[in-house]
Amino acid sequence: MASIADISLSASINLLTALAFLLAFAVLRLQPFNDRVYFPKWYLKGIRGSPTGSTTVKKFVNLDCGTYIRFLNWMPAALHMPEPELVDHAGLDSAVYIRIYLLGFKIFAPITLLAFIVLVPVNWTGKTLEAPGAKNLTYSDIDKISISNIPFGSDRFWAHIVMSYVFTFWTCYSLYKEYKNVAAMRLRFMAAESRRPDQFTVLVRSVPPDPDESVTEHIEHFFCVNHPDHYLMHQVVYNANKLAAIVAQKKQLMNWYIYYQNKYERSPSKRPTTRTGFMGLLGNKVDAIDHYSALIDKQNKEEAEERGNVINNPEAVIPAAFVSFKTRWGAAVCAQTQQTSDTTIWLTEWAPEPRDVFWENLAIPYFELSMRRLVMTVSLFFLTFCFMIPIAFVQSLANIESIMKVFPFLKPIIQKPSVMSLIQGFLPGLALKIFLALLPKILMTMSKVEGFTSVSGLDRRSASKYYLFILVNVFLGSIITGTAFQQLQQFLNQPSTEFTKTVGSTIPMKATFFITYIMVDGWAGVAAEILRLSPLITFHLKNTFLVKTEQDRENAMDPGCLEFSTSEPRIQLYFVLGHVYAPVTPFLLPFIVIFFGFAYLIFRHQIINVYNQQYESGGAFWPDVHGRVVMGLIISQILLMGLLSTRGTETSTLVLIAQPILTFWFHRYCKGLFESAFVKFPLEEAMVKDTLERAVEPNLNLRLYLQKAYVHPVFKDDDFEKPTIVDDEEDNPLIQTIRPTRRSSKSGSETGSC
Amino acid sequence: MASIADISLSASINLLTALAFLLAFAVLRLQPFNDRVYFPKWYLKGIRGSPTGSTTVKKFVNLDCGTYIRFLNWMPAALHMPEPELVDHAGLDSAVYIRIYLLGFKIFAPITLLAFIVLVPVNWTGKTLEAPGAKNLTYSDIDKISISNIPFGSDRFWAHIVMSYVFTFWTCYSLYKEYKNVAAMRLRFMAAESRRPDQFTVLVRSVPPDPDESVTEHIEHFFCVNHPDHYLMHQVVYNANKLAAIVAQKKQLMNWYIYYQNKYERSPSKRPTTRTGFMGLLGNKVDAIDHYSALIDKQNKEEAEERGNVINNPEAVIPAAFVSFKTRWGAAVCAQTQQTSDTTIWLTEWAPEPRDVFWENLAIPYFELSMRRLVMTVSLFFLTFCFMIPIAFVQSLANIESIMKVFPFLKPIIQKPSVMSLIQGFLPGLALKIFLALLPKILMTMSKVEGFTSVSGLDRRSASKYYLFILVNVFLGSIITGTAFQQLQQFLNQPSTEFTKTVGSTIPMKATFFITYIMVDGWAGVAAEILRLSPLITFHLKNTFLVKTEQDRENAMDPGCLEFSTSEPRIQLYFVLGHVYAPVTPFLLPFIVIFFGFAYLIFRHQIINVYNQQYESGGAFWPDVHGRVVMGLIISQILLMGLLSTRGTETSTLVLIAQPILTFWFHRYCKGLFESAFVKFPLEEAMVKDTLERAVEPNLNLRLYLQKAYVHPVFKDDDFEKPTIVDDEEDNPLIQTIRPTRRSSKSGSETGSC
Repeated sequence: MASIADISLSASINLLTALAFLLAFAVLRLQPFNDRVYFPKWYLKGIRGSPTGSTTVKKFVNLDCGTYIRFLNWMPAALHMPEPELVDHAGLDSAVYIRIYLLGFKIFAPITLLAFIVLVPVNWTGKTLEAPGAKNLTYSDIDKISISNIPFGSDRFWAHIVMSYVFTFWTCYSLYKEYKNVAAMRLRFMAAESRRPDQFTVLVRSVPPDPDESVTEHIEHFFCVNHPDHYLMHQVVYNANKLAAIVAQKKQLMNWYIYYQNKYERSPSKRPTTRTGFMGLLGNKVDAIDHYSALIDKQNKEEAEERGNVINNPEAVIPAAFVSFKTRWGAAVCAQTQQTSDTTIWLTEWAPEPRDVFWENLAIPYFELSMRRLVMTVSLFFLTFCFMIPIAFVQSLANIESIMKVFPFLKPIIQKPSVMSLIQGFLPGLALKIFLALLPKILMTMSKVEGFTSVSGLDRRSASKYYLFILVNVFLGSIITGTAFQQLQQFLNQPSTEFTKTVGSTIPMKATFFITYIMVDGWAGVAAEILRLSPLITFHLKNTFLVKTEQDRENAMDPGCLEFSTSEPRIQLYFVLGHVYAPVTPFLLPFIVIFFGFAYLIFRHQIINVYNQQYESGGAFWPDVHGRVVMGLIISQILLMGLLSTRGTETSTLVLIAQPILTFWFHRYCKGLFESAFVKFPLEEAMVKDTLERAVEPNLNLRLYLQKAYVHPVFKDDDFEKPTIVDDEEDNPLIQTIRPTRRSSKSGSETGSC
Repeated sequence: MASIADISLSASINLLTALAFLLAFAVLRLQPFNDRVYFPKWYLKGIRGSPTGSTTVKKFVNLDCGTYIRFLNWMPAALHMPEPELVDHAGLDSAVYIRIYLLGFKIFAPITLLAFIVLVPVNWTGKTLEAPGAKNLTYSDIDKISISNIPFGSDRFWAHIVMSYVFTFWTCYSLYKEYKNVAAMRLRFMAAESRRPDQFTVLVRSVPPDPDESVTEHIEHFFCVNHPDHYLMHQVVYNANKLAAIVAQKKQLMNWYIYYQNKYERSPSKRPTTRTGFMGLLGNKVDAIDHYSALIDKQNKEEAEERGNVINNPEAVIPAAFVSFKTRWGAAVCAQTQQTSDTTIWLTEWAPEPRDVFWENLAIPYFELSMRRLVMTVSLFFLTFCFMIPIAFVQSLANIESIMKVFPFLKPIIQKPSVMSLIQGFLPGLALKIFLALLPKILMTMSKVEGFTSVSGLDRRSASKYYLFILVNVFLGSIITGTAFQQLQQFLNQPSTEFTKTVGSTIPMKATFFITYIMVDGWAGVAAEILRLSPLITFHLKNTFLVKTEQDRENAMDPGCLEFSTSEPRIQLYFVLGHVYAPVTPFLLPFIVIFFGFAYLIFRHQIINVYNQQYESGGAFWPDVHGRVVMGLIISQILLMGLLSTRGTETSTLVLIAQPILTFWFHRYCKGLFESAFVKFPLEEAMVKDTLERAVEPNLNLRLYLQKAYVHPVFKDDDFEKPTIVDDEEDNPLIQTIRPTRRSSKSGSETGSC
């Protein structure tokens, strides 16, 4: 086990790394030509323009030395913006997200203090490890202040039991306050925010096929009958996946076209050429600009054709629609109620924000959805517990012997001891590294297969999958050596109490490992986040080769966003570690507190200056966050029971049984209290907003406002009209339209059913 | 282990018992003086009157010999009534309830056939038990056709594995069809049934206190604002628990009064006397009639006072109300949506039927409700796993030695060997018997503490508690010897796979025990149900001593009802047994099939002729029934895995792992498909009924119809007006009342807020 000295060394290395990142950031961010990398949020807001300094040099490099001296002044600046303004500026999602770090800080700062005041003296004076009778144990100073230093069966364990209750109480109290606070923030945000299309709109899925009516007519008639006073209009959804692919392809071609165009402009003497074959490397040599403009023309034609296809072909209309209501009240009612006795059709739910809609998944019928969930659940199980099997297979292939067989000419290099050890240390890890890097993408794909209809929902779902993976493979995997599958076998073949005992008793020994982990992943990793190395490089590459106009430069910016699906589960690991080690090895706690504080600072800076949010779910992820913190807490309580029961305190351990039960009850209680604020939209609030709006804007034309709200992004810029709806309105005697008749064809549709 | 001969003996005894019950029933039911015991339902329906035969003898005894010959003709008669008529006659709850037996029959009849065709030959030719090399095993013919006869590690186990899948598939298919069918029945019932108050009404709980308004005003204003187009009226709930107690007491006194009155009329020479003290045994001797009439007078006065108290005291109004809407649509919307952002107030749910309301529980606030659930969950755990501890304590007190110590004079009798063995066999069981008899009452009290607001909800909740108890203590308790607590210890201290192995391998040995159990509890027990011994005696006692008028005789009838909370979990045990033994000991299956068929017949007869339903929940219990059958199925699958893994087929057992996963998925799928039909009320149906009603009865005065629907039963017979509501209506400009003003006092209430 590592001693204090080892830990200090590791800490100083990591601190230096973090500091180096911060310094690099401080220097880079002050250079005007990096402005769009480090302050893209302000550009997107339209507050900051391209630098227009006096000299050319000043446009690119900052020569003002004063600014370098105050290189850390972004830190107070990040804290400066008050929270309401932050919500306005960066959205509620971001503001709530950084509150997770704050919550961690709030929970663990007092716990650390308390643990150092109470538990450290108790442990330090335990004297088991120094006792002359003790077996020849290797121990460090860290172990001396951990629970390992308490004699077997000692009454001192009562201190740990009591403190565990105190920690649990404090955590629950903080969680409760935070849940309440976030729920209030969400409600305030909902109440304060201006009119949004999703407030009036409900997503209807699984519209049943009707032999006599088209989808749009069927929807119209159904809602006219069942929500006669509130139904306003609807927008059908087109299956535009192919069109979207064409558009994406076109964009790629455009990039190449511009690249060659720029190249030509810079050196007008020679027209750039390319080859028509594989990736521009093989095939005939042609004039690049002509080639790409021809390709783009072709793509344009295809696109126009597909566009016509989608609009005119009734088959392209999928059985789902966005139905809008005259009032928020009407939408709230429709979203929360069941429409028909058959629960597989006419499924209504709140429409996600227009930019939050995941268009591909809108058409999945009920049974298929159910099957997909089953398959994905089973897959997740295998992914979590058996992912080592294929990786071990790849690793067995990629050893030195097989490399030498395939590439005999490398033999002399590889056989050098230093190279050999490097490869032996590096290669087996490579497959794992690649897999781990791909994991979030795999999980996201799995969530997509499950059929969620909003990007935010996909993010939340992927996050819970990733959390399971981290918990099993990183947390348990580090404590118990062996793969997750071996753990599972062990778990099944041991008494269930024995498993917790095994895990519990291993915990104190792994403290130093996790301290190092926190420093590498938490400290240095977070500091690297602020440097934004990859967007920095990408931006400058794009800037050099693709940018012509100011608009292009705008597009070249990659502000990025909070990756909820990957970063939240990682934070949760720190919560688990904190709770597990709080009564066991208090020495670990300060590292966690520093992580939470530092990360809060960094991410507050990032959401203010960098990230551009992709959607606004109004903090809808908080119930998940809360639930996972509680889950981590319960895991820590059970492991503590396992640990203590191996230390000769079986009876006093019984006192701890109530803890997980009470904690679980607390979770249920909070869920009942607050969760519906994240799931439902209360009628009272809807009514208040409706009444207010009616008073303030009596002549609002809501239909016009909602007209193009829910249009597939590929149709967004077009002058894309959906004539069928207009037709229906004209024929429909119940709904008065204010718009003049634009087209009067196709008047044969039914009129009587409304 | 019992042989075929033992089983046959037991079977014939139980068959004879059942036959004796049926014979006794056949004779007794034909006697006119028992008519009200065996056909109360028809009296309650008003179809049957008191027997008015020609002679006095014929009025009491049936002398027509022909009817005795056809003593079993009730059986076809019971099957004769078609289901729609049965729903009309006995209600949907009863009709759906007996479908549980039918479902059992439908599931197990084909399974039995298949098991006998496939598994019995496979087992019979296994020849393990007859093999000369086999250890000196005692075995019977039953074991020869059970799985015990298959050699260790034989490939024949594949037959059991495949059949297990076939059984699961058939069960799931039947369950699916039945769920679909019941859901359709419920929807048809809802659609067909005439106007009912609960269709228009929503129960609102946790009305927040308001400093300026009374509860009724606050409710009125809230719903005027938030459901302006649909709100009609509301009825506040009075805390009439004390009043109800007084009324119940008065009824008791009335009974005594009538008893003495009758006594006096029969022998007018002597006025009956009673004593004023403890239970009429101690104290002064007084004239009984005068005494009770004085007591009744006093009680009358108290009642009137309390009645005034309840009506006039604003404190007596509890913060809950029944809010009625103008349309079913409005009520459906309000019941399914959330009203305010605070989820602890203004809780709305469908109002139960008026007779289904459990009045005592309407006023419990959210936090208390949550606490109560926690406490009851923990209590249930201890009740289930530790109930043997207090009973063992009582048993240890009630042994022969302590009896002899306390009652030394009994010594000579007790010491006789025959008496001694009787006591030793009987006494320890007595405490257990008493506890088991009280158990349903205990569970019901626990459910009441949990705060359910409807009697049907209480029944459903108690049933799930009872199911857990039966599963742990009767099923597992019979398989593994030892108390539930010991099982729990075993479960915790063994590997989890080991536990299923232990249980699984014990299963075949317990087959004969369960066969006997089925015959005693299932066959004879169900036959006893039709005899109705206890209501028979009670009725004749009441008839002799209390009945004076025809009305009294009506009241003396005790038709009873389906005790869902106790009888449904008992049926579930048969499902579990059937599924567990289907692949193991097919010989048990016919007994189960006979039970289901026989019970279906008996209970169909009972709900037609006897039981009077206490409430109509529209088969709301089916999701529970379905869930429990699935749970039993999954238990059986896991136990089969445990059993097979002890028979040298570890690898082929892996094939069975998918079974519980698929079954659980099936459960989730069905839940998603059908459950909402039992929980929500679809808007489309509501709209259809509303539209229809508006067309058929345009002048319906709904307000008048709903006026007295939700009045506490103690106010039911009174001319009890709730003036506050009328006041509010008068003051309320939004709601037009059709009734003339009856009272114009108290006009100071707010009017502006609506």
